[in-house]
Amino acid sequence: MERKGFGGSMAFSFEVISRDESSQARVGRLVTSRGEVETPAFMPVGTRGAVKAVSPDELWDLGYRLVLANAYHLYLRPGHRLVEQIGGLHRFMDWPGALLTDSGGFQVFSLGRLRKVTEEGVLFQSHLDGSAHMFTPELSVEVQEALGAEIIMCLDDVKEYPVGWEEAHEAVLRTTRWAARCLDSKKKVDPALFGIVQGSTFSDLRRLSADGLTSLGLDGYAIGGLSVGEPRELMIEMIEVTAPHLPEKSPRYLMGVGKPHDIVDGVLRGVDLFDCVLPTRNARNGMLFTSRGPLNIRNTRHRDDPAPVDPQCTCSLCRRYSRAYLRHLFLEKEIYGHRLATLHNLSFYGKLMRETREAIGDGKLDVFARECKARMEEIDD
Amino acid sequence: MERKGFGGSMAFSFEVISRDESSQARVGRLVTSRGEVETPAFMPVGTRGAVKAVSPDELWDLGYRLVLANAYHLYLRPGHRLVEQIGGLHRFMDWPGALLTDSGGFQVFSLGRLRKVTEEGVLFQSHLDGSAHMFTPELSVEVQEALGAEIIMCLDDVKEYPVGWEEAHEAVLRTTRWAARCLDSKKKVDPALFGIVQGSTFSDLRRLSADGLTSLGLDGYAIGGLSVGEPRELMIEMIEVTAPHLPEKSPRYLMGVGKPHDIVDGVLRGVDLFDCVLPTRNARNGMLFTSRGPLNIRNTRHRDDPAPVDPQCTCSLCRRYSRAYLRHLFLEKEIYGHRLATLHNLSFYGKLMRETREAIGDGKLDVFARECKARMEEIDD
Repeated sequence: MERKGFGGSMAFSFEVISRDESSQARVGRLVTSRGEVETPAFMPVGTRGAVKAVSPDELWDLGYRLVLANAYHLYLRPGHRLVEQIGGLHRFMDWPGALLTDSGGFQVFSLGRLRKVTEEGVLFQSHLDGSAHMFTPELSVEVQEALGAEIIMCLDDVKEYPVGWEEAHEAVLRTTRWAARCLDSKKKVDPALFGIVQGSTFSDLRRLSADGLTSLGLDGYAIGGLSVGEPRELMIEMIEVTAPHLPEKSPRYLMGVGKPHDIVDGVLRGVDLFDCVLPTRNARNGMLFTSRGPLNIRNTRHRDDPAPVDPQCTCSLCRRYSRAYLRHLFLEKEIYGHRLATLHNLSFYGKLMRETREAIGDGKLDVFARECKARMEEIDD
Repeated sequence: MERKGFGGSMAFSFEVISRDESSQARVGRLVTSRGEVETPAFMPVGTRGAVKAVSPDELWDLGYRLVLANAYHLYLRPGHRLVEQIGGLHRFMDWPGALLTDSGGFQVFSLGRLRKVTEEGVLFQSHLDGSAHMFTPELSVEVQEALGAEIIMCLDDVKEYPVGWEEAHEAVLRTTRWAARCLDSKKKVDPALFGIVQGSTFSDLRRLSADGLTSLGLDGYAIGGLSVGEPRELMIEMIEVTAPHLPEKSPRYLMGVGKPHDIVDGVLRGVDLFDCVLPTRNARNGMLFTSRGPLNIRNTRHRDDPAPVDPQCTCSLCRRYSRAYLRHLFLEKEIYGHRLATLHNLSFYGKLMRETREAIGDGKLDVFARECKARMEEIDD
């Protein structure tokens, strides 16, 4: 069943289940043909069709039902047509849950070289071999439909920080026009199409972008163009001014964020979805999140410590191993150390989201948020 | 319960269950306090207290019950006393099966710098930081007892290939004297102590070494000093001349071997135990063993192949993924590719040993060996 210019996926729905009285936070249920996702939810990042160091089974067992992958990377290698030929990205990576693919807008901005944005699209050189490519809104949708994600993203025009108002304004208007073209070029019924709000750190532009995208009637809305070097306060402010301009009934996704206390701050301002490489990347650097704050397992003080990384954690690492062993694995560059640390941090993020949802349901989010932020604010990597 | 100079472990036994009529091959049952191991068996190598890229659960599920670790590496880092303090190596690495630790003789020979062998022991510089250390037979046993393996090895004097008869002769006599000192310094009752036959590629020295060690009444006997650069034919010949001089009732262990057809050749000559980094190291290089011979997953011909690596294999990789996906993981340097490939190769080796045991039991080892060698002889890395 294919149809041109379809907007409003039939296979996708989002429902707000409960709301926090003292903030904009809400608990929601996002449904795709691959099942339900409870929100607020964190998406592990599987850029190239694999969440680094862990298996799909492990992600599933940790409670994850929605994973992010990147159209930009998979388009360049192994190619979206190849993935489609093997049976789509779910089959390729053997992931039974839902997938969200990013459009490539941010990756072209952050990874591509000799980037040139025109009304048609963005011309860039591959970060792999320098070959020239043009990403248009139409190609981005085509790539994402070939990959077969349940949620696909509109191509957006991302600007660096800081940027002038005029340039940011132009990017907002272009992002809206591109979103309309994405909607128009969408051929498959099932995938939900999300727009991405831009506008740098200008409140008026964030509102303009939110209003423009909302008028298109998309399936969900992301807040993009943040975590690109702006002060944390400005990031929080932009979430705060943007979220109220997005439809209550649609999911809101804060892209590329973040640290645990950033996530809680996003939830307090009405955000439902998050993604970030932080838990997985930091794990591979030996930085582990714990209920008492972060720790670096390479630190000498863990040398002969028989205690688990976090006595309150029930992950494979904390149930079975001492800090001394994990430190040993890291010093010896053993892959198994990366596995265990990644599992642990993803377990931590899964628990963080579960507790956040419970706190909203119990009307105790304010207390939970204060405690969580007090524990986590020391993370500044 | 400690006792000085104990030889002949009470917690260890070995029994020959069945024999092949047309060769020296036998099926055996090796028992330690950590359960039974059916032989001929292959031991995955967990040098630093971790089999690279896989978990203890995965090893167990593949049928492995005996894993090798290295006294040399663990002595240098994190230190045998630290491991002991955490509860021993089984606890440290959370391995429920049995462990065999190598004595360090081979590692000092192959990794250490400025090596100087005296009657007392071997003086070497750490490959990590250049610090000076002396490994004596007594220290090697002390380290291995602290680690807590079920099977420990005597310190041996390994010579490079080629080496003159006189020097090899001296090393044989020293290895025997050192074995006697190992036996004498053993403090724990449980660990089985194995001697290591040396003698380079000299048949008379191999016999001399086997006779010397056998006279000590050790729990098992290894054939060492092979796979150090000698021609394959000489290696096979040395196994052939050595094995008949080792007690029928004791397990025989061919150290550091090897390729599937080398293992089968060892089994045909009466060897019961093997270890080698080949399946795990090759896996990380993208070389996979299959029922139709080896393949390199990086090869372009696998680029868009939806078929599994080996349709006859039931491992996680072959049940779930295409060659196209595994190749993609390798090109992208994804850790998960190393996991899957390692699991696959260890599954292959596990199956090889299982089929070898069955073939002996069914009286069909000659046919099995011919088929196996025909499939595998093309492996020459």
